[in-house]
Amino acid sequence: MNKSIILYILGRLIIVEGFFLIIAALVSLLYGEASYISFLQIASINFVLGLISWLTTRKTETQLGKKEGYIVVSFVWIVFSIFGALPFVISGTIPSFTNAFFETMSGFTTTGSSILSATEIDNLNHGMHFWRSIIQWIGGMGIIVMALAIFPLLGINSLQLFVAEVPGPSKDKIKPTIKQTAKSLWGIYIFFTLLETILLYFGGMSFFDAICHSFTTMATGGFSTKGASIAFYDSSYIHYVIAIFMVIAGTNFTLAFYAVKFKWKKIYSDEEFKSYLYFVIGFTAVITAFLVIMQNQNFSISLRDSFFTVVSIITTTGFATADYITWKGFIIVIVFILMFIGGSAGSTAGGIKVIRIVFVIKNIYFELRRIIHPNAVIPVRYNKQAVNQKIINNALAFITIYILTFVFGTIFISFFGYNLDTSMGSVAATLGNIGPGIGDVGPSGNFKEFPDIAKWVFSFLMLLGRLELFTIMVIFSKSFWKA
Amino acid sequence: MNKSIILYILGRLIIVEGFFLIIAALVSLLYGEASYISFLQIASINFVLGLISWLTTRKTETQLGKKEGYIVVSFVWIVFSIFGALPFVISGTIPSFTNAFFETMSGFTTTGSSILSATEIDNLNHGMHFWRSIIQWIGGMGIIVMALAIFPLLGINSLQLFVAEVPGPSKDKIKPTIKQTAKSLWGIYIFFTLLETILLYFGGMSFFDAICHSFTTMATGGFSTKGASIAFYDSSYIHYVIAIFMVIAGTNFTLAFYAVKFKWKKIYSDEEFKSYLYFVIGFTAVITAFLVIMQNQNFSISLRDSFFTVVSIITTTGFATADYITWKGFIIVIVFILMFIGGSAGSTAGGIKVIRIVFVIKNIYFELRRIIHPNAVIPVRYNKQAVNQKIINNALAFITIYILTFVFGTIFISFFGYNLDTSMGSVAATLGNIGPGIGDVGPSGNFKEFPDIAKWVFSFLMLLGRLELFTIMVIFSKSFWKA
Repeated sequence: MNKSIILYILGRLIIVEGFFLIIAALVSLLYGEASYISFLQIASINFVLGLISWLTTRKTETQLGKKEGYIVVSFVWIVFSIFGALPFVISGTIPSFTNAFFETMSGFTTTGSSILSATEIDNLNHGMHFWRSIIQWIGGMGIIVMALAIFPLLGINSLQLFVAEVPGPSKDKIKPTIKQTAKSLWGIYIFFTLLETILLYFGGMSFFDAICHSFTTMATGGFSTKGASIAFYDSSYIHYVIAIFMVIAGTNFTLAFYAVKFKWKKIYSDEEFKSYLYFVIGFTAVITAFLVIMQNQNFSISLRDSFFTVVSIITTTGFATADYITWKGFIIVIVFILMFIGGSAGSTAGGIKVIRIVFVIKNIYFELRRIIHPNAVIPVRYNKQAVNQKIINNALAFITIYILTFVFGTIFISFFGYNLDTSMGSVAATLGNIGPGIGDVGPSGNFKEFPDIAKWVFSFLMLLGRLELFTIMVIFSKSFWKA
Repeated sequence: MNKSIILYILGRLIIVEGFFLIIAALVSLLYGEASYISFLQIASINFVLGLISWLTTRKTETQLGKKEGYIVVSFVWIVFSIFGALPFVISGTIPSFTNAFFETMSGFTTTGSSILSATEIDNLNHGMHFWRSIIQWIGGMGIIVMALAIFPLLGINSLQLFVAEVPGPSKDKIKPTIKQTAKSLWGIYIFFTLLETILLYFGGMSFFDAICHSFTTMATGGFSTKGASIAFYDSSYIHYVIAIFMVIAGTNFTLAFYAVKFKWKKIYSDEEFKSYLYFVIGFTAVITAFLVIMQNQNFSISLRDSFFTVVSIITTTGFATADYITWKGFIIVIVFILMFIGGSAGSTAGGIKVIRIVFVIKNIYFELRRIIHPNAVIPVRYNKQAVNQKIINNALAFITIYILTFVFGTIFISFFGYNLDTSMGSVAATLGNIGPGIGDVGPSGNFKEFPDIAKWVFSFLMLLGRLELFTIMVIFSKSFWKA
């Protein structure tokens, strides 16, 4: 284990976080808020630690091994969350470190679960709002690069391989390829963030709120500057703009490469993208029908609220325009199912991911045909190519771990006296990086009242979900340390 | 498709059902109940139809093809349930055919869900009690033979292959082997039924109740002659006797071959059996600890109730001694998880089955090691043998279908306005062939109030679960009819 290279990379990343803290400090200053001092104080700690790491490791061999890769990828979220939580603590905004760490981990993992009540959110100052929003945006950046450039190098979840034309990283020249891929992806990410900001601003949102909401939309994070979330805005335009950008944020970012080259056919013939849209359209139609027919509600409001809710949950963003908990059981059931599906691979969304759902459903047909024709070799086909059974097995193993983690998490939380809905809802919401759940942690609830130990478990679940489970599990496995 | 052989077999099986109806008629007569006429009337219909089928098909080639096997296996439950429901209808005991069909399907599939309230159960006469109990017992017989002798021939779920010393059926001599296996298994089944009857009778239960409860214990069915189920009996002895026989009924019946030969090592080194006991002991310990520590309840009562509840749910029997719905959320969560695990393969239990759970958990370790050592071939090992990846894939596909069926079922039921707990609970209870669920269908609830369409869906779910899903799905697949 080359500890030096780990320190080297973490040191540099801490400095990057320091720069973002400086930006938050400037935003605070701009609005004349005293909390700019808190951001500066923590930024200086980041810079000092980064400098020490730089000085002690600058002669390090920069070749990153697989094992070190796992450690870095796992630790960076924890380290970022520790430092990112400190401005909340020392400014007195969130005095408890447990709460602040939960909130910050929820930010960096783009979860969006909060320990703040609606009133407390409305009372936050601009600096703190900005910090909550930008940590989600940074998290989103990290996830895209991790999913599309780093995970393949570590040998996990080679789901991006199905978009063949994207210049995939090869083992020979890791660094230049990661940098190259990262730059292109971030370009797209920044472009959409700015575009949404402009559209929201023209829709009547203040520039500050527009940029904060764009940060958290593109990250599929879901922190809002309003206690009532998007329901605060009485404008269908704003609801639809945010919903459409959530759809974009939940799409595989490599598809944007095609969009830039106007290769539309590649996009609309991509099976994951199609299934993702079918899910969105199908579930929206079903909920709209339910609201209109069974609850006698207005069609256009039903359509808008259904579309927003479906998109918000499936992309694991977690914004709210309507409190689905107050709707009937049917909608809670649908929301609960959506919490597990998640967005597309290679997006900022969490959850199981559409591509894995597609794989396992296709695998059922394969298995049935195998039973009928025991001697035929019938591979699962995806985007017109035969899929290696190893990839199907990986998807199945992933879903198994996901569900087992969900089950154990639910048992743990229920032990503190929470009912089935709240226990399942809070675990599914944090593991899936969604934000609000069902039960007591619905859109108008929050995570404040859970005991501290539960909050640490939730923080761990957010990290587990964010790192696609395997990453953390590999680190906890014996073989990893032996190999 | 050889329709003649299908008719041939179904005809003979209808006659068998007719004989059981005669037994029910005799029981009715014994207690001087008028309902003996209903049983006789339906028995005559069975005999007439069986005779017609015998006369029209007696020159049929008796070689049963795979395709015909699927049809027979699926249809026999439906045909049995139709005729089995009629005595309830014409005697006026359950006037609605939908309700009677639900109750009978629940019987034959050894589910134990009921559309009768506790009071209605207490008011049933002996003939009807006997009929409800014996249809579960017949169902249990059918399941064991199906799982251990017929399914392997159809190419599905070759889970029994892991118990290598049992004379497995080979394709060359189907009929004698099925008969041979069936006879041995039924011998064991009848032996345990009688043993339990004697033990319950000596524990103070009336002979009639003892035999009825033994029928439904060994079938892991769960119908009781008492509205309050086993809670009616204020005797720890009776509770423990029934619990232990539920454990036996949830064990792979081929292990009994070893027991007869005193090969104890073979039994206690069987991985599924060990895991099954670990689940029972582990979950019992956890619930007992919760009741004693968190709820300040008496230890020995907590232990007894926890053990009974865990065993009743994991074996998918569904007897009740305590209403877990009135316990805290934690216990409902555990019960809900147990509803999915199910008993052992080759037993009368439903659910996913312990062996599949063991396979997929082992597969996770395998997948993690594969990530760390991408080039090594690391097979999953079970009972010290390497398991073919095809069997693991089959288990994973099964669980996927199981969960998808559960999800679609839950969506469907919730559409009628039921909340998340009741929707999930009723679907999990019927699909898993358990009986009572959570929510409104807990141990003190029933399925009476669901709309008729939901009852038909539940009946279908019971059949799906009972036939291990694949059987029915294969019939519904295009390839089946083409091949």
